[in-house]
Amino acid sequence: MSENQQKLIYIGRKPLMNYALVAIQMFNYENAEEIKIRARGSNICKAVDLVEYLKNMYYKDLTLKDLNIFSEEISDEKGSKKTLPSIEITINKGKNAPAI
Amino acid sequence: MSENQQKLIYIGRKPLMNYALVAIQMFNYENAEEIKIRARGSNICKAVDLVEYLKNMYYKDLTLKDLNIFSEEISDEKGSKKTLPSIEITINKGKNAPAI
Repeated sequence: MSENQQKLIYIGRKPLMNYALVAIQMFNYENAEEIKIRARGSNICKAVDLVEYLKNMYYKDLTLKDLNIFSEEISDEKGSKKTLPSIEITINKGKNAPAI
Repeated sequence: MSENQQKLIYIGRKPLMNYALVAIQMFNYENAEEIKIRARGSNICKAVDLVEYLKNMYYKDLTLKDLNIFSEEISDEKGSKKTLPSIEITINKGKNAPAI
């Protein structure tokens, strides 16, 4: 799979719909077959929500290619380090993606 | 694996430490080898946090036996239905669990 066919979405503080539109753009207009979705801390719920939303609303054949949870050490503005739980979900569009 | 060796923790609104103590109780005093951790909606982050906390603080050999995300339809007090993203994580204690 070429680099172009796998994309990455980093979930942050924006509303769920922003990320849903990015994913649809990637799948339907940028020829992506797989999307890696990453999130940390309280954004983990939104990452899971995004996958379920895409599956229930648009891509009936969407499959979970890979699913991982792990810890990431990050340092904040003041330089102090903290460990955050993280998730990485790789989804595959499946064959018959709808024309949106 | 007998019923007794696999336990279930449902993540709700209580603090993370409550669930950590339940897990330690199950692993160390109730002879559990595996624990299934389930959560819905905004509690999904706490479920992932719990697994990472147990692995980083107590059970270095903790392994992820299974990891699933799905949607659940629930009805609230007024009877209206809504779909919530859910996660189910099955962890295995691993061989050398510490004596706490």
